[in-house]
Amino acid sequence: MDRNAELIFTGDELLRGDIVNTNQAYLGQRLLDLGIFATHAISVADDLADIVGTIRDALARRPEVLVLSGGLGPTEDDLTREATAEALGVPLEHHEELLEQIRDRFAARGYEMGESNGKQAQLPQGATAIPIAGTAPGFFLERQGTLVVALPGVPWELKEMWEGTIEPRLAAQPGSGAGHAVRRIGVFGIGESMAAEKLADLPWRGSDVEIGTRASLEELTIILRGPATPEGSRRLDEIQARVCSALGDRVLGVNGPGLPQIVGRLLLDAGSTVAVAESCTGGLVGKRFTDVPGSSEYFLGGVTAYSNEVKTALLGVPAELLARHGAVSAEVAGAMAEGVQRLLSSDCALSTTGVAGPGGGTEEKPVGLVFIGSVVRGVTEVERLRLFGRRDQIRERAALAALDLLRRRLQRELAGI
Amino acid sequence: MDRNAELIFTGDELLRGDIVNTNQAYLGQRLLDLGIFATHAISVADDLADIVGTIRDALARRPEVLVLSGGLGPTEDDLTREATAEALGVPLEHHEELLEQIRDRFAARGYEMGESNGKQAQLPQGATAIPIAGTAPGFFLERQGTLVVALPGVPWELKEMWEGTIEPRLAAQPGSGAGHAVRRIGVFGIGESMAAEKLADLPWRGSDVEIGTRASLEELTIILRGPATPEGSRRLDEIQARVCSALGDRVLGVNGPGLPQIVGRLLLDAGSTVAVAESCTGGLVGKRFTDVPGSSEYFLGGVTAYSNEVKTALLGVPAELLARHGAVSAEVAGAMAEGVQRLLSSDCALSTTGVAGPGGGTEEKPVGLVFIGSVVRGVTEVERLRLFGRRDQIRERAALAALDLLRRRLQRELAGI
Repeated sequence: MDRNAELIFTGDELLRGDIVNTNQAYLGQRLLDLGIFATHAISVADDLADIVGTIRDALARRPEVLVLSGGLGPTEDDLTREATAEALGVPLEHHEELLEQIRDRFAARGYEMGESNGKQAQLPQGATAIPIAGTAPGFFLERQGTLVVALPGVPWELKEMWEGTIEPRLAAQPGSGAGHAVRRIGVFGIGESMAAEKLADLPWRGSDVEIGTRASLEELTIILRGPATPEGSRRLDEIQARVCSALGDRVLGVNGPGLPQIVGRLLLDAGSTVAVAESCTGGLVGKRFTDVPGSSEYFLGGVTAYSNEVKTALLGVPAELLARHGAVSAEVAGAMAEGVQRLLSSDCALSTTGVAGPGGGTEEKPVGLVFIGSVVRGVTEVERLRLFGRRDQIRERAALAALDLLRRRLQRELAGI
Repeated sequence: MDRNAELIFTGDELLRGDIVNTNQAYLGQRLLDLGIFATHAISVADDLADIVGTIRDALARRPEVLVLSGGLGPTEDDLTREATAEALGVPLEHHEELLEQIRDRFAARGYEMGESNGKQAQLPQGATAIPIAGTAPGFFLERQGTLVVALPGVPWELKEMWEGTIEPRLAAQPGSGAGHAVRRIGVFGIGESMAAEKLADLPWRGSDVEIGTRASLEELTIILRGPATPEGSRRLDEIQARVCSALGDRVLGVNGPGLPQIVGRLLLDAGSTVAVAESCTGGLVGKRFTDVPGSSEYFLGGVTAYSNEVKTALLGVPAELLARHGAVSAEVAGAMAEGVQRLLSSDCALSTTGVAGPGGGTEEKPVGLVFIGSVVRGVTEVERLRLFGRRDQIRERAALAALDLLRRRLQRELAGI
């Protein structure tokens, strides 16, 4: 890979371990999608000489892009403006229009701007300000073929400036972005090693297509990268089609949104509403549904039935069923889904009941045993899961597995299968 | 701070953004608790010359500790052994006993060791092997006053070697470890700047106590660090007492657990059960309660009433109240909490209703307006919040604010105020 970048993160909090640096992974990924590889990512303390030295060392390696993150606030420890100016040997210049923007931001929240914010309107000579996302202005400038970019350390502010200002700029450069194509195939309900096994015979070895995987709680992502030429595009299409066919209905989509958005879209397409009855997930399924703006169009609500009394009294799960099969059983999962569907008069319903741990497991019903119930068009289906990991992982996976069960059922419904 | 460290992380996956580097925060924090400050943390690609150069630059700054993480596997990309040897100008030496350990590890899992694993038994001359945690051996050696440590990139393996071998070594050094005390004061419902204002007059300036803050969604943590001498301990006690008295009932505790655990403990102490009625948080309050193992002892369950129909039909919120005040109002928050308390026959209840955004805001009821309702011993109290941030932040904060309202009410109850 020819095009490269360097990343510098300032802030004692990164070195004291007060904060996990998620900006590094974010920037690394976004740059790579443009065909630019980050070769160094350096966290440095809030010390002017150290920051200046780090910037100089990075510039000496002549990267195409140098991203600085953090140190743009109004306090004494915010040194990125001064350090950049010193490293480049240029003075700082006052930008009155920037000061106005900062003042307006404060006024909108009913605060008055402090005196210390004045320094936020100072930029190294030659720099262009990036529109304020939160309260700290960013900036960028060109220096001997390197695009130097300074962004805030707050992740959402950094993202907004990166995607709003810097990424379009880099993508517009000749030979950029367009030269590199990425396909992200989202997959749910299959592990990394099983996916690797299923994909072992695919014909990308020796080709110019690179394949990688990234496992997160939400999904397994299979990443295909290749040249964005017509020929490369055909190669990517071919491999993508083979991956999708090998993994069947485990595939969520290509370069698409996450599971909660997908299920929301399917519910809208089907004109259906949904309700949830949760035991071991304690509200997480509802949380996942309502993470999506506009989910009130299809998500009616739910009942979290953590105690057996609530399962019986509110969801109408027969006490006899609980006594015979136990709360963690296929029978109770089905009755919970049916109960909440009746209670809220929804079209579809989901339920969860399981042993999240760390305590409460038995030989017959070990930690990680979870039943997911679903009702779609009056038909109840239950799936049994054996999940691994810590309590929080088991709960998160169970909630997502419930969404995924509804996804597969709605997709079959809509396809008329 | 006099004692310092440098951290070097190798691996393309860190620079491509396939992985978030949690080892950096972990090591930063553990080192700091020994009184050692990490001044640089550098992620570098799997390139021999780059890694050698980075090690040399770090050694030139003469840190007390240099930690390398990653690159200890058996593949071609695992270069830490070679790079360390080259940077120090020493040869690699074969350790037969290490090869045996690796072979045994494989055998225990029913596998045969591959030929490529042979290189894992090669260590730079003068290095001591660290007992294997997973499958990759680590090592350490002294070089001109710097302790050079190489650990695997897999977080649990790194932790095991750090805490099992390296930390005891560093703590045993004269003037270390025991010489440093940390107090973490958890605070909720107050911002960083307001906390700074309230603490401005405290007498730590010029003393040997350092104060820092860490802001997370869950809490604001005020961190006091000082010498662990009897005199230093008295200083820390004094400042801690002043901080706690300045921040009053905003203080969650010192070196204590998080809000959900605290509220759970208070409910157990009061012998009370709780139920939740959620609108804008969509299940998050229940999720937070049930994050805690054993929460079934006091958390009965709840109703997520995302639609107004569910608020009326299930929670018994009068339709007239919804029509007159709107779903986002103090009146409806109170009625929701009372409704779920009746429905689930709990001792206490919490409710949330608000505008999480990004859409749905009006001038009168803007995005971020949230009402939190609570019932404790038959008495309803509602708080009005004006939250800022994105949808997910507003929802998380609203859920935690609900827990915090119950915390403050239960603390008053238990104190008989």
